Amino acid sequence: MKKPQPRLSLKADRFFDPNPAVRTVARKLYQSVKNLPIISPHGHVDANLFVENNPFPNPAELFLIPDHYIYRMLYSQGIPMESLGVRPLDGSSTESNARKIWKLFGENYYLFRGTPTGAWLNHEFAEVFGIRKRFTGATAIEIYDEINEKLQQPKFRPRALFDRFKIAVLSTTDAATDTLEPHKKIRASGWKGNIIPCFRPDGVTDLKAKNWKTNIELLTERAGVDVTSYSRFIQALENRRVFFKSMGAVSTDHGVSSPHTHEFTKGEGERIFQRALMGQATAEDAAQFTAHMLMEMARMSIEDGLVMQIHPGSDRNHNRIIYDKYGPDKGCDIPMPTEYTHNLKDLLNKYGNDSRLTVIVFTLDETTYARELAPLAGHYPAMKLGPPWWFHDSIEGMMRFRSMVTETAGIYNTAGFNDDTRAFVSIPARHDLSRRVDANFLAGLVTRHIVELDEAQDMIYDLANGLVKKAYKL
Amino acid sequence: MKKPQPRLSLKADRFFDPNPAVRTVARKLYQSVKNLPIISPHGHVDANLFVENNPFPNPAELFLIPDHYIYRMLYSQGIPMESLGVRPLDGSSTESNARKIWKLFGENYYLFRGTPTGAWLNHEFAEVFGIRKRFTGATAIEIYDEINEKLQQPKFRPRALFDRFKIAVLSTTDAATDTLEPHKKIRASGWKGNIIPCFRPDGVTDLKAKNWKTNIELLTERAGVDVTSYSRFIQALENRRVFFKSMGAVSTDHGVSSPHTHEFTKGEGERIFQRALMGQATAEDAAQFTAHMLMEMARMSIEDGLVMQIHPGSDRNHNRIIYDKYGPDKGCDIPMPTEYTHNLKDLLNKYGNDSRLTVIVFTLDETTYARELAPLAGHYPAMKLGPPWWFHDSIEGMMRFRSMVTETAGIYNTAGFNDDTRAFVSIPARHDLSRRVDANFLAGLVTRHIVELDEAQDMIYDLANGLVKKAYKL
Amino acid sequence: MKKPQPRLSLKADRFFDPNPAVRTVARKLYQSVKNLPIISPHGHVDANLFVENNPFPNPAELFLIPDHYIYRMLYSQGIPMESLGVRPLDGSSTESNARKIWKLFGENYYLFRGTPTGAWLNHEFAEVFGIRKRFTGATAIEIYDEINEKLQQPKFRPRALFDRFKIAVLSTTDAATDTLEPHKKIRASGWKGNIIPCFRPDGVTDLKAKNWKTNIELLTERAGVDVTSYSRFIQALENRRVFFKSMGAVSTDHGVSSPHTHEFTKGEGERIFQRALMGQATAEDAAQFTAHMLMEMARMSIEDGLVMQIHPGSDRNHNRIIYDKYGPDKGCDIPMPTEYTHNLKDLLNKYGNDSRLTVIVFTLDETTYARELAPLAGHYPAMKLGPPWWFHDSIEGMMRFRSMVTETAGIYNTAGFNDDTRAFVSIPARHDLSRRVDANFLAGLVTRHIVELDEAQDMIYDLANGLVKKAYKL
Repeated sequence: MKKPQPRLSLKADRFFDPNPAVRTVARKLYQSVKNLPIISPHGHVDANLFVENNPFPNPAELFLIPDHYIYRMLYSQGIPMESLGVRPLDGSSTESNARKIWKLFGENYYLFRGTPTGAWLNHEFAEVFGIRKRFTGATAIEIYDEINEKLQQPKFRPRALFDRFKIAVLSTTDAATDTLEPHKKIRASGWKGNIIPCFRPDGVTDLKAKNWKTNIELLTERAGVDVTSYSRFIQALENRRVFFKSMGAVSTDHGVSSPHTHEFTKGEGERIFQRALMGQATAEDAAQFTAHMLMEMARMSIEDGLVMQIHPGSDRNHNRIIYDKYGPDKGCDIPMPTEYTHNLKDLLNKYGNDSRLTVIVFTLDETTYARELAPLAGHYPAMKLGPPWWFHDSIEGMMRFRSMVTETAGIYNTAGFNDDTRAFVSIPARHDLSRRVDANFLAGLVTRHIVELDEAQDMIYDLANGLVKKAYKL
Repeated sequence: MKKPQPRLSLKADRFFDPNPAVRTVARKLYQSVKNLPIISPHGHVDANLFVENNPFPNPAELFLIPDHYIYRMLYSQGIPMESLGVRPLDGSSTESNARKIWKLFGENYYLFRGTPTGAWLNHEFAEVFGIRKRFTGATAIEIYDEINEKLQQPKFRPRALFDRFKIAVLSTTDAATDTLEPHKKIRASGWKGNIIPCFRPDGVTDLKAKNWKTNIELLTERAGVDVTSYSRFIQALENRRVFFKSMGAVSTDHGVSSPHTHEFTKGEGERIFQRALMGQATAEDAAQFTAHMLMEMARMSIEDGLVMQIHPGSDRNHNRIIYDKYGPDKGCDIPMPTEYTHNLKDLLNKYGNDSRLTVIVFTLDETTYARELAPLAGHYPAMKLGPPWWFHDSIEGMMRFRSMVTETAGIYNTAGFNDDTRAFVSIPARHDLSRRVDANFLAGLVTRHIVELDEAQDMIYDLANGLVKKAYKL
Repeated sequence: MKKPQPRLSLKADRFFDPNPAVRTVARKLYQSVKNLPIISPHGHVDANLFVENNPFPNPAELFLIPDHYIYRMLYSQGIPMESLGVRPLDGSSTESNARKIWKLFGENYYLFRGTPTGAWLNHEFAEVFGIRKRFTGATAIEIYDEINEKLQQPKFRPRALFDRFKIAVLSTTDAATDTLEPHKKIRASGWKGNIIPCFRPDGVTDLKAKNWKTNIELLTERAGVDVTSYSRFIQALENRRVFFKSMGAVSTDHGVSSPHTHEFTKGEGERIFQRALMGQATAEDAAQFTAHMLMEMARMSIEDGLVMQIHPGSDRNHNRIIYDKYGPDKGCDIPMPTEYTHNLKDLLNKYGNDSRLTVIVFTLDETTYARELAPLAGHYPAMKLGPPWWFHDSIEGMMRFRSMVTETAGIYNTAGFNDDTRAFVSIPARHDLSRRVDANFLAGLVTRHIVELDEAQDMIYDLANGLVKKAYKL
């Protein structure tokens, strides 16, 4: 049955409270920041996009196939990964007809009603590509053709979009062993886009990481230090941090299972490291080593000034069948309960009173906002709270974050917004949504006479730009 | 001091946001579903009601004495169970004057202000019985008489109310060893009320269940399989499922303490089962056995198509004094923190990618909505989320559920509403409240321009009827 | 750059929902209780204030230096404790220029935007001291002088403020070994201010308390019982409770790490107590002893009628550097996840059905509101819920509490408000905020037709005065 083709229109007041008084203030606050440059201090966009600056291949390859935020929802409703074009590791067949994939996406786009993914996609369609019809099975091919045509135009190439999006700085996330070739090439190209790396050493600090041994060999090569002992391992990491800093890095990132921090003696470190080199490290060794390396990373951050980010609490690759067939980052990472008060104690006791350190802590466990994270950030000078992360990077998620954090930590112990995305084209949509929700949150404070309008005007600027610049020393 | 007797009036816009824009949309959405049939796929109404079709005895016996949701609140304020007519197991005396009990209830009815129980009762009084005065100590006897008089009328008998309530299907919850005599008699009677059983084998799968050994003997008898070994136990359960299915069952139900799932070998199963038969099973045996039986139940569900429901996280009979004196289900079951990400891993890894399975997961721990359950349901094809359960089956509880689940899982990985009640007369009140709250939730999305009105119209239908039908294969 | 000096004005409708219908009802409800006397059954004001009745020394000493709620926020932004006048234990130097400290406070006062501390301070400035300018770096000295001048006036002395604040009763919190000299002196003075003690025996019941042995010696002296055995220890505590009761105490208070309750045999008690006397108690001994003493305290409360308060879940002195330098209560107590369902089971099973006992339970873990505490309080006659505590004593914190507790426990199993403050001058601000938020909560119920206006009028009185009087037997 043919459905009508309704219009896609982004409302000017979207995401604002329907109360007219709140909405008026929210609109005013939002207007004052909507055109500010985008600062993206943490994310996963591929820097090669901007080296090659090739056109994006087609809508399915641009929006759907690389973005597990999106296809996991289709998969949850029983749509096979193969029919969505996701590629198995063994090279076995997957749907290759981009139009057919796109049609299937359109037919199931209703699944995204009420989700941030849906809100971002609508923004991307309307604002980036000028689409004027709602995405459905009936309009899918028409929209495909319209986007596809635009993708061939120079102004839809990555660098042009980067400029159009007014991105002031974009941080990638890179292995400790990365050569940062794309970052070098971008610098060499003369193009002015400010794309900086971030030092994420999980592949060598997590003794149970896939290919850990190979990573250590690579580290030897890249750091110019023969990593045969714990102390040389530390030296190699220090060398790599120097290199990353020279390439513009302002931060490190640590994707740990638990935020546990605990220092062991140098002797213990050496013993564990040797066991790992011999392939004999236990799970307990790995957990202890990670807890220790967070301490070491804080020490190094105090020395070199790199801002430290801790991203704990995801049970990665929960679905073994999907992981074995497709690899990591396929929409099957599931949050776990996470504890911070005891786990961060050693790190904060040793380094948390030192204002030279900034450690930005993220969580997937919202129960820790008011109970643990806001009280910690509201006391320790070194600690700041990262924005609502991943599943919580959403309208309601942001409102819960502000509502549970602000009264104890204020807004000034938070670190602004970051998009944490691999979907480059979604960056403006995500920042716009964040600015709208923050404006709406502040409008709630103003209309309830908790802050004055002029205070809210300062605050919205800080939430959109000031805090992120300060937290990441940009 | 005599108080005035204020009117009881159910407002047309009750439970809707007071914002006029939201309210207008909420009303429109609610109107479109308020008269849809009630689908009640999970509950505890006694099927015998509809076999005998006798009049309900009196208001106290209808509303208060069998409903622990209600008398627990009176008990919490120091009112003895005996004065409320609750019957001790040993047959010792309890108040038997229904009028006196009802008066005491009326005097303390103010305790229910702001509770869903209060909202349901007001609905039942006003809509089912046409009461026009508010229930207080002063009006109690008058209301008693008015209800009592109606209870004698044919149109207030169970079958007549079932029809008047427009119940399309009502599922009871039944032991694996149940003969389902009332269900057979209803079928035989020619009455068309669609009352189906649900297979709940806790009494035989929980090795620590009261009377486990007797239950196993009963299982032997009912299944026609001599349950002397683990494999015969499994065979007996399979037989019973065939029988339940033949009687119209569409689902199974598992009231477990923890949602832990883990398969053991056949040999281990046999050893534990033999220990249990000899009365030597340990608490650890029982926990392992339950974890294994959830795996087995999922396997059987894939084979026979019965939808699997998991209801974990209640510390049953927390109050030992009350339990010893009055037995189970006396308002002293208290929720516990519950973990799903690790506990469901084995089940979801083995069966969660199989779309033939539907496993509907409930929780009493709201912290798991956004952290664990929505991400799991937003990925695994087999998993759906049950509605806010028990203490959370309430206006604010439902709003928290939608607010914490929808952005990650959408509405389409949820399973609609179910009332889970033993209080037959409260069924329309509960479904009405749910429809109102869902309409209000969607109106919030529409007025914030997160979804369009026509999308919300689709969604309210799905929330009221579409999703429950799909989830329970009705 | 000189900033303008904006006006400080407390809006009549502050903290109310901006929806006009809600606001109208909230205002009406609030008006009916705003002038009710203040009942403050739990707090940490120094009773000596009212013995000496000296003028407060200066604004910095009045508002900032003794209040860790405030300076922790400044410290979190890297402002050293020394520059805020906080005094190190070793007597080493700290800033002593009160004007300079006050200026620094003013310059950073923007940090408190959106926090309850900011709301309270604004109330204190405007309502207690008649300040008409907003507190900033630019206005700091002017405001300092204005407050300082007032502090010299008789009507700003402690007793005069006590009367002006309409405090009907103020409870202090006192060690089991306290002589309650100030309470005696106040009684003897003829001044009518009703200041009562509260019995908090943590210093002797926590075997790991600092100076435990000294405290036991003091207990021997004060109780007139030679505390050389467990049974004499119990006897000494009973004696002290008699004394506290004679001085007007209505309650006991227990600041425990965990709410675990478990009784051991008299023999075990003796063995542990003897180990403690010899300085050989382990951490496990101490945990067991605390769990047992909560049982004993409940038993004594049934006998003597003192209301029992349990305050668990704070990891005290998380920041060891600050603790070593400045001592306890310096803004570095961090909440921990807390479990109640299992931990309170022994106490509630033994004493929870006894209406002679009132045990008021607090939490810093909001996840337990709907999951554990409301179901427990909604069943056990002896248990009531304390108000949102510490970090959660805030606008949003109170709204979450009501929203998560009321539907299961009603308002009638809660214990009204208490300010729990050492900042005497903030007491009216805190009670006013609480009354406003409760009025706003009820207005939400009224406008959504969940309760009627006349019911809300009863409820707001109970929330402001009725429940606290009943819970604390005042």
